[in-house]
Amino acid sequence: MESYRFLVDLMLILLCTKLLSIITKRFHLPQVVGALLAGLILGPAVLGWIGETEFIDKLSKLGVIVLMFCAGLETDIVELKKAGKASFIIALVGVVVPLLGGFIVAYIFNQEHLIASDATAPMMLQNVFIGIILTATSVSITVETLRELGKLHTRAGNAILGAAIIDDVLGVIGLTVITSMADSSVSVWLVLIKILLYFVFALIVGVIFYKLFEKWISMYNRDKRRFVIAAFVFCLFMAFSAEYYFGVADITGAYIAGLIISGTERTKFIASRFNTLSFILLSPIFFVSIGLKVSLPTMSAPVVWFSLILVVVAIITKIVGCGLGAKICGFKNDECFQIGAGMISRGEVALIIADKGAALGLMGSAFFGPVVIVVVATTILAPLFLKVAFKNKEELIALETTEKEYPYNKTDDKDLVLNDAHTKKLKEKLDKSHGKSRPYHT
Amino acid sequence: MESYRFLVDLMLILLCTKLLSIITKRFHLPQVVGALLAGLILGPAVLGWIGETEFIDKLSKLGVIVLMFCAGLETDIVELKKAGKASFIIALVGVVVPLLGGFIVAYIFNQEHLIASDATAPMMLQNVFIGIILTATSVSITVETLRELGKLHTRAGNAILGAAIIDDVLGVIGLTVITSMADSSVSVWLVLIKILLYFVFALIVGVIFYKLFEKWISMYNRDKRRFVIAAFVFCLFMAFSAEYYFGVADITGAYIAGLIISGTERTKFIASRFNTLSFILLSPIFFVSIGLKVSLPTMSAPVVWFSLILVVVAIITKIVGCGLGAKICGFKNDECFQIGAGMISRGEVALIIADKGAALGLMGSAFFGPVVIVVVATTILAPLFLKVAFKNKEELIALETTEKEYPYNKTDDKDLVLNDAHTKKLKEKLDKSHGKSRPYHT
Repeated sequence: MESYRFLVDLMLILLCTKLLSIITKRFHLPQVVGALLAGLILGPAVLGWIGETEFIDKLSKLGVIVLMFCAGLETDIVELKKAGKASFIIALVGVVVPLLGGFIVAYIFNQEHLIASDATAPMMLQNVFIGIILTATSVSITVETLRELGKLHTRAGNAILGAAIIDDVLGVIGLTVITSMADSSVSVWLVLIKILLYFVFALIVGVIFYKLFEKWISMYNRDKRRFVIAAFVFCLFMAFSAEYYFGVADITGAYIAGLIISGTERTKFIASRFNTLSFILLSPIFFVSIGLKVSLPTMSAPVVWFSLILVVVAIITKIVGCGLGAKICGFKNDECFQIGAGMISRGEVALIIADKGAALGLMGSAFFGPVVIVVVATTILAPLFLKVAFKNKEELIALETTEKEYPYNKTDDKDLVLNDAHTKKLKEKLDKSHGKSRPYHT
Repeated sequence: MESYRFLVDLMLILLCTKLLSIITKRFHLPQVVGALLAGLILGPAVLGWIGETEFIDKLSKLGVIVLMFCAGLETDIVELKKAGKASFIIALVGVVVPLLGGFIVAYIFNQEHLIASDATAPMMLQNVFIGIILTATSVSITVETLRELGKLHTRAGNAILGAAIIDDVLGVIGLTVITSMADSSVSVWLVLIKILLYFVFALIVGVIFYKLFEKWISMYNRDKRRFVIAAFVFCLFMAFSAEYYFGVADITGAYIAGLIISGTERTKFIASRFNTLSFILLSPIFFVSIGLKVSLPTMSAPVVWFSLILVVVAIITKIVGCGLGAKICGFKNDECFQIGAGMISRGEVALIIADKGAALGLMGSAFFGPVVIVVVATTILAPLFLKVAFKNKEELIALETTEKEYPYNKTDDKDLVLNDAHTKKLKEKLDKSHGKSRPYHT
């Protein structure tokens, strides 16, 4: 049995994530919620059918690297530049306020007599890390809701999409700095120099790789599979060298590798192949592995309180932060609320950060439950807040009917893959080609 | 380092298999050869950069399951029935003769003072197992060569394609019987009853699954990803239950799962997704893991002799066996030689069988080298034999030029994925639509 156990684990993981994400989809909830629930149910929290094994551990690590690589691949650098000052300010204030909020809540609860942390990093860093988790934004669910409401093309809608892309980049920077500091024996300056060196390294290697890759593509246009493999090798190289030589998180390296390749001619083909790898094997394993780390039965009263407060803080700080940013940029009050509401959802990004932090001793295992609760709660509540923010019933109904004609209305299973930038591109495609064939495979 | 070591392993595996398979392709050799060389070079035989780890072990197990699942998916049951009596007889005699030949060679060498075997199964079974390995046929390289020669549509060409499909099925049956017998403590009758029960089980479960799956597909035609996941779960279920409840090889279960799904409407979509999973991650790991098991430096003189003799026997027995079968069916003498030459190549199928046998104690580790040598040698020599068999220079040149117009002339990286049946379908498509879009993604 033992040597075939992993087949059963894999079977259960695939079956449960799919079943639960189909169910959550029925209730208009994102499929990430379903996948997380699958992990909770299969893991020690409920049934205890699956434990953490090396197979699951390694594949979930690979899964998160591929997820971040896809996120990089699907970031449109041209769009990023176009997103403009307004989106930048919204994203920046929308990162700073939750960071502060998360830090304060963690500062209060992360104490021996309340929530005993088994993390190894200094308390200060642990508390900042909770803040970093709250900075993440996942707009895939927001985009779906806005499309449903017919509000995707409003001024607020555009601001949300732009800010979300920049938010990703800011999140990666925050993550990079804090994970590099996890090893407390190293001085802060050395850490910062190493980060700087990594970015210089990434820039040089990136430019060289990009040029060679483009030239190779132009020389050889038959077999595209070799480009996919080359991209994968580059991603693994950047991830590994980040972690091993510079003390920078591997997922930062993977994200940067994706960014570098995102400008090439074969990006779409490459991205679609990695999306397949992700949905068919790696993503379900990653999300379940998160669920496996949560042990609900052992949640003490302070942990429950911490969770509830963290959810409230997560929502309020994003609304206030992004709203404030929007206000600075001259948006009207109702638009400020709309933009804030559109940035509430944390989704998979927060999980990726939390997972990395836990591995590095930046987050105690007792905090996994609260983080999962924040992700699930904000993702479920985001559409409700958005609907309230955009409440204008008559216009809503009128627009809903016209929007229903769109063939892209259902992005289906895409949620298991990071697709903020992707959805953005889809939106553009919609405007241009309204009803042609899908740009990505389904 | 330790926890990131697997990223480096994966990077090296992907890089080397791709580089070497591009190089072998240049020399008109199948890419399987390149992938095997990659394993030999990275493993203890040459550089020793990669050792066997749990990560590689589990993923290569999953890889071979997915390879066999794809083989099943791409088997055209309708074609199988059409292949006719001639192909059946060719395949059958072409299986029996190599089985005998392999058995005899193994019987001579598999002795304490020649090649000491560390396998646990009775000697008799070990020797039969070497025979079973020689029964395998991989026609992908043959199809490529025939297409190049413009001989794919000849009577001999059709007979080869038909016989190759049936050969696969016979090979699976042989493998099933012998692996089930690996546990010597169980009586032969019990083993046969269990195999029979598994086929009954597979038939019942298969019919139920097929009906439900077809109904589901007809009910829901938007998101196709869920069908891919359902197919994967079914494949894992069949593989695991074969191994665990019936003592039948897991790859037999995977192959049968593929066969069952091969008749559904979504087969193409499902197969293309599994091909992606295979080429991007699992196949390279599987082929390298085979190479890792070969330690050339420790090859003793008897092992070298055994290898050479096995290569000769492998070639002669296929030519004689298939030729004899063709003769029985009334083919002309030159056609008999052509058919025999077309079935020489062993390719990945022999490796899959050998890998399974080694895991079950049916084959000593000293035999891995010889098997790899047989696979590489027969795969390299098959095109040469074919060219000799079809030597008719004028016709050859004339046909070569017309065939060059075919857009499918290069199947490129496909060799890493079992694609005998696939190539068959491609060939049909060629006849029908000569130049339209590719049926599978590239």
